[in-house]
Amino acid sequence: MKVLVLGADGYLGWPTCLYFSQRGHYVIGVDNYFRRNAGIELNCEPLIQTPNLFQRAKLWEEKTGKKISIHIGDVTNYNFLLSVFREYKPDAVIHYAEQPSATYSMINRDKAAFTLYNNLTSTLNIVYAVREVNPECHIIKLGTLGEYGTPNIDIEEGWLEIEHKGRKDKFLFPRQSGSLYHTTKIQDTDMLWFYVRTWGLRVTDLMQGPVYGLFTEETGQDARLMPNYNYDEVFGGVMNRFIVQAVVGYPLSIYGKGNQTRGFLNIKDTMQCVYLAATHPAETGQLRVFNQFTEPFSLNELAQKVKTVGDRRGYKVVIEHLENPRVEKEDHYYNIHHTGLSKLGLNPVYLTDEIIEEFFSIAERYKDNINKSIFYKGIKWK
Amino acid sequence: MKVLVLGADGYLGWPTCLYFSQRGHYVIGVDNYFRRNAGIELNCEPLIQTPNLFQRAKLWEEKTGKKISIHIGDVTNYNFLLSVFREYKPDAVIHYAEQPSATYSMINRDKAAFTLYNNLTSTLNIVYAVREVNPECHIIKLGTLGEYGTPNIDIEEGWLEIEHKGRKDKFLFPRQSGSLYHTTKIQDTDMLWFYVRTWGLRVTDLMQGPVYGLFTEETGQDARLMPNYNYDEVFGGVMNRFIVQAVVGYPLSIYGKGNQTRGFLNIKDTMQCVYLAATHPAETGQLRVFNQFTEPFSLNELAQKVKTVGDRRGYKVVIEHLENPRVEKEDHYYNIHHTGLSKLGLNPVYLTDEIIEEFFSIAERYKDNINKSIFYKGIKWK
Repeated sequence: MKVLVLGADGYLGWPTCLYFSQRGHYVIGVDNYFRRNAGIELNCEPLIQTPNLFQRAKLWEEKTGKKISIHIGDVTNYNFLLSVFREYKPDAVIHYAEQPSATYSMINRDKAAFTLYNNLTSTLNIVYAVREVNPECHIIKLGTLGEYGTPNIDIEEGWLEIEHKGRKDKFLFPRQSGSLYHTTKIQDTDMLWFYVRTWGLRVTDLMQGPVYGLFTEETGQDARLMPNYNYDEVFGGVMNRFIVQAVVGYPLSIYGKGNQTRGFLNIKDTMQCVYLAATHPAETGQLRVFNQFTEPFSLNELAQKVKTVGDRRGYKVVIEHLENPRVEKEDHYYNIHHTGLSKLGLNPVYLTDEIIEEFFSIAERYKDNINKSIFYKGIKWK
Repeated sequence: MKVLVLGADGYLGWPTCLYFSQRGHYVIGVDNYFRRNAGIELNCEPLIQTPNLFQRAKLWEEKTGKKISIHIGDVTNYNFLLSVFREYKPDAVIHYAEQPSATYSMINRDKAAFTLYNNLTSTLNIVYAVREVNPECHIIKLGTLGEYGTPNIDIEEGWLEIEHKGRKDKFLFPRQSGSLYHTTKIQDTDMLWFYVRTWGLRVTDLMQGPVYGLFTEETGQDARLMPNYNYDEVFGGVMNRFIVQAVVGYPLSIYGKGNQTRGFLNIKDTMQCVYLAATHPAETGQLRVFNQFTEPFSLNELAQKVKTVGDRRGYKVVIEHLENPRVEKEDHYYNIHHTGLSKLGLNPVYLTDEIIEEFFSIAERYKDNINKSIFYKGIKWK
């Protein structure tokens, strides 16, 4: 299979390139280095400086003999994207090329406008390039569980049959989310669903929860193959941030009460899920939706797990509740269904103390790189 | 009240300027002449050449002594929009500045990308300008009934209470529409709803059906004050097109079977509805939705009404069914509720033979301008 990975330099994009390459697929990686540049601009660089994509692909080829083709360019530039599609005619395209930070999208108008433009135009361009070059190409788009928000009813897997006044129809599960970034993910789904109905495309939407971890079978082979590890307020995932905070004796910062519950997963499970989706493609004219996570935790539960392991390692971990800069429900119903990926064969990796220990050891190795000033800059939703 | 009308040169924008001005409000009209320019580019100019906005505002002032301030610029340019907001500090902004044609949005990638960018960035800019200059400013955004598509359940007025597995919550009515243009209107609502929840804005979403007619109390005073009358495939409303086709002996072209049902309204009712919304603003933190139409008709019923009047005037009107270039259900359930605007005092104008006669007389007066070649250019959805 020829797999085009858009956003190949990202936290998930690069491990995805390696995962597919390792399993014998031809991988084309595309990125515009937005995240690298934004990290410099906002002074929130990752814990580990990763080599650029060409260097990483060369290293991978030296180690394994497997080639990954790299193209640096912007997916919002249609001519660039089309030229890549024409050159490789991919069988699947994995779309990680959206601006991925809720916080970033709330900083100001320019960053909101960039998020809106980048996330929707990149998706539109993929639709048109697929249609022009290979309408059978399977589009795998990363969504987020955050799109659902915290409704007072069970969250089904993407779709909901509604009975109203004695009649029935099936709709995309109603979504209302907590940031402009999340809203663009609702918007891109609406758009993909329109083109799926109209042009018969094949699309899988992976509604993913927050991801933690660094190690996959491939990235664990060499420190230079590891993904970006962001631990800052803008681009860092909450779990990744907690570990680094614990290591430098900084309180684990929870926004608000900490009863906010989300469905988390290990980066190893992201790899499995994306791979399962790609190797079991959606049908022609199908928008298939999977809720992609392994375990739901509240922020308090997650912090407590980190504290338990941290204290055992000799840190005196403190948990601190900050005033919540976001606008979100801190106590809410949350019952979210996810059976689709299990049926395809997902073998989940649960969050154990051993995994947290492994995580601590990485943060300790790069302790000198940790910049405490970027844990919290006070970017507010209001 | 100071009312900012964005898209003031459009079919509805200009009559709206006059309607509010006539009733003693201070009107600021903004447009970038997109429609004028696109009409030239695509060779689908309106039946009646209207003076530019400065000329029309001058004429209006000469006739009535009432001043309308005109600014030519692009709402997607935030600095431009912000400067207008700062200069006038409007109490209400009426957002007609979206690219309004479903057909236009389906021509090719560039026009789709323009529609997506223009419609969403203009809306985002309004949100930010309101927040920066006057958070109490009431945003009135034009939506379309087309956003709902043709679901198999009753269409409620914007919102739906859903009971699922014994629990309840209320959501925006699920929407899935028939073009990229309509999809951008779903997307802008999702975005407005996010900012309403987060920043406490006041927003009214007017889910409008297809509009017909030219005459309001104000536009009827002088031919130079009439709105654009488009009758072409790209920008023309179906009713406006039927009349012109009848006058030149061209078959009334129906896409497909003609059982497609939509909720229509007279331009006079659009004026009433927008005015009622503005003079009864949404609450702080409220996204209020009205379904804005007067009568549902199928395309066959509408064509038959035009034929009846046309035949009486001596035309031998033929109704023709073309292969449907769109992807839509031609037989469908359609039961759409609309009580909100009636409760505010809407006094509907129904489609009578007299109104169709009046319409014919205008088309006859400008018969020499009619360009048959633009009725149908064969722009296909697929």
